[in-house]
Amino acid sequence: MADWQEITGGITAPRGYRAAGITAGLKPSGLPDLALIVSDVEAIAAGVFTTSQVKAACVDYCRQRLQAKHNARAILCNAGQANAATGTQGWFDALESAMAVAQALNIPSESVLLASTGVIGQRIKMDALKAGIPSLVAALSETGSDTAAGAIITTDLVPKSIALETTIGDRPVRIGGIAKGSGMIHPNMATMLAFVTCDAAVSPALWQQMLSRAADRSFNSITVDGDTSTNDSLIALANGQSRTPAIIEMGSEAEKLEAMLTAVCQHLAKAIARDGEGATCLIEVQVTGAQDETSARQIAKTIAGSSLVKSAIFGRDPNWGRIAAAAGRAGVLFEQENLQIKLGDFLLLENGQPLTFDRPAASAYLKQASTGAYLKEDTVLISVNVGNGHGTGKAWGCDLSYDYVKINAEYTT
Amino acid sequence: MADWQEITGGITAPRGYRAAGITAGLKPSGLPDLALIVSDVEAIAAGVFTTSQVKAACVDYCRQRLQAKHNARAILCNAGQANAATGTQGWFDALESAMAVAQALNIPSESVLLASTGVIGQRIKMDALKAGIPSLVAALSETGSDTAAGAIITTDLVPKSIALETTIGDRPVRIGGIAKGSGMIHPNMATMLAFVTCDAAVSPALWQQMLSRAADRSFNSITVDGDTSTNDSLIALANGQSRTPAIIEMGSEAEKLEAMLTAVCQHLAKAIARDGEGATCLIEVQVTGAQDETSARQIAKTIAGSSLVKSAIFGRDPNWGRIAAAAGRAGVLFEQENLQIKLGDFLLLENGQPLTFDRPAASAYLKQASTGAYLKEDTVLISVNVGNGHGTGKAWGCDLSYDYVKINAEYTT
Repeated sequence: MADWQEITGGITAPRGYRAAGITAGLKPSGLPDLALIVSDVEAIAAGVFTTSQVKAACVDYCRQRLQAKHNARAILCNAGQANAATGTQGWFDALESAMAVAQALNIPSESVLLASTGVIGQRIKMDALKAGIPSLVAALSETGSDTAAGAIITTDLVPKSIALETTIGDRPVRIGGIAKGSGMIHPNMATMLAFVTCDAAVSPALWQQMLSRAADRSFNSITVDGDTSTNDSLIALANGQSRTPAIIEMGSEAEKLEAMLTAVCQHLAKAIARDGEGATCLIEVQVTGAQDETSARQIAKTIAGSSLVKSAIFGRDPNWGRIAAAAGRAGVLFEQENLQIKLGDFLLLENGQPLTFDRPAASAYLKQASTGAYLKEDTVLISVNVGNGHGTGKAWGCDLSYDYVKINAEYTT
Repeated sequence: MADWQEITGGITAPRGYRAAGITAGLKPSGLPDLALIVSDVEAIAAGVFTTSQVKAACVDYCRQRLQAKHNARAILCNAGQANAATGTQGWFDALESAMAVAQALNIPSESVLLASTGVIGQRIKMDALKAGIPSLVAALSETGSDTAAGAIITTDLVPKSIALETTIGDRPVRIGGIAKGSGMIHPNMATMLAFVTCDAAVSPALWQQMLSRAADRSFNSITVDGDTSTNDSLIALANGQSRTPAIIEMGSEAEKLEAMLTAVCQHLAKAIARDGEGATCLIEVQVTGAQDETSARQIAKTIAGSSLVKSAIFGRDPNWGRIAAAAGRAGVLFEQENLQIKLGDFLLLENGQPLTFDRPAASAYLKQASTGAYLKEDTVLISVNVGNGHGTGKAWGCDLSYDYVKINAEYTT
């Protein structure tokens, strides 16, 4: 079982971090829209960013910073304007934002990382942002995680936050995380921001490798609507303030740390999928019997992302045919005679052929799974076996409802 | 301009073909559900089939037949049961269907091709099918295209049919086609059946090459919901009854024939996209400036398939940001500073940056484009330029409406 426990405190649970979120006036709604995370000391910094060819200025900025230097002290995140497709001016705005934070914190601007979320094509409201930075810095607190989590969300219904603790040697090591998501969520990455803090000491290369693998097993395995955004960013800091020995290569301690990092990322990723626009439940797809983990995950993602599967789940329809069809088109070779499909505990298909099952009971399972938002029970579990291989993989998504269309057909830009 | 004219007659417009569609009692609705297309003589036969790992028995059957022999006399299509995920019994049902048709027509069963559409996991109602075949054969007619077109549809709102005529040498050559589509439509192939008849004489290898290229530029470039089915089949016959010289290699006559074949396939593909479940309009995406045709088409398909773009069009929202984001995640490298986006005649983005445009007028264009179903004007045109390359490509889709969710969330299996 898990080698860690859940604790309170979010991104300020690990030692040596402060955070804050304020209303700077960037969002038309007047809700909190500017967040800052600060490490007391230079932290090892790793990042995973959108693979889109159309990238926000903050993404280019972070990539360049992290190529030049594997450390950071601060992450500034604004919500309201994406600062994507804003050209050279957008780039200058990013630099100016970083400099304003650096000045207020009295740190080098190279130590500031950036993230933005909001409307594509809109520049950040720089006057409001710059005017807000002194209050933001003044609000920094060792219990500030929740205010930061609240200031990075846009159409999210709830903030997303987690902290876990384990021991390395005889000392506690903690990892915290906050995230925002909702619409436009898809593998490679979601329109999704996630910030992770850790107080272990770890080498830059190892921390980046761990983060990349954890991202594949979490944020890159969720899908809401198949759309990947211009701003997707996952940034993780490790500041060594746990005073544990530095982890510089893979081994039992590194594995323990990576497992906990993966758990933090999976918790946040599932919270994002569950909070997908218009979603009434979380869908977890588990694939076994594939040739390798990548193939298994590819099949799981295709099922979790299928509009027909998602519509069927919304309609509480135990439609194994759509699950089989999605598995079949995932681009992974398998023998259809080996295909097995389960919905919850209901075995629907075996040896590639449908079984007689209690359809009303299976539909009732779907109905039951969709109630009680944010309880463990609101997860619909789809299990698929495709053969005798050892590859297993998971993906998460949500159902497709009328509200998804409503939210996204509104005239918002 | 086009080197052909539209004529009436559908798949029975080319010489030497008869067709029929009847109600055999396969569909619960009592609507026509069994169609037959027959060539007076052995015709060259080519096919393009689903790439899914989960394939219907008819797909395996046709693939095997066409590998062994490049000719056919007849195509039998049933609607109501997909005969997919039906195991060995489904395979026997397919063989028995072919034999029943062969016997009634007094032709070898190797000359019969098959297609099925309907509910996955359900066997064909063989008693009803076999009982219907004598009436089906008796109903065959040189003007029977419309009855066949009406018997292959499922959730389609309208039958889809076309015939074009050109001249090769001094003699007329004709190509006709019918199709069914609607939900589950996606590149590689759609849940889509299309049958094409041609009276030119052409070599088997060339006819297959032409059909594969035409499929890439038509059926493989449409998307309704990203789901590819177990039964997708495009079958094309060429029976030489135009009495024109045999076309055995590429050249001006072959190009003329391929262009007309592509036009027939594109007409049917667009009709399928326009008739997508819940669709209120056709979306045509034209991409220019890419490195090659494949890259351009990949970007076009990603835009046409984006749930966010589709929702925005349904909401009559000129949301260039979602178009830019979809282009960016298509998996094709380009410089975002080169990106240009037009919606109809409205230039929304140039050099990767948004322009000021008449937003109410652009929204009015979307409103206007969505009215008058099945007129030329109900097409929303999205034009995207990604650079200075010579690659161009098109894709077609439809908007995402409440009705899509409604249709697909109904408890139908």
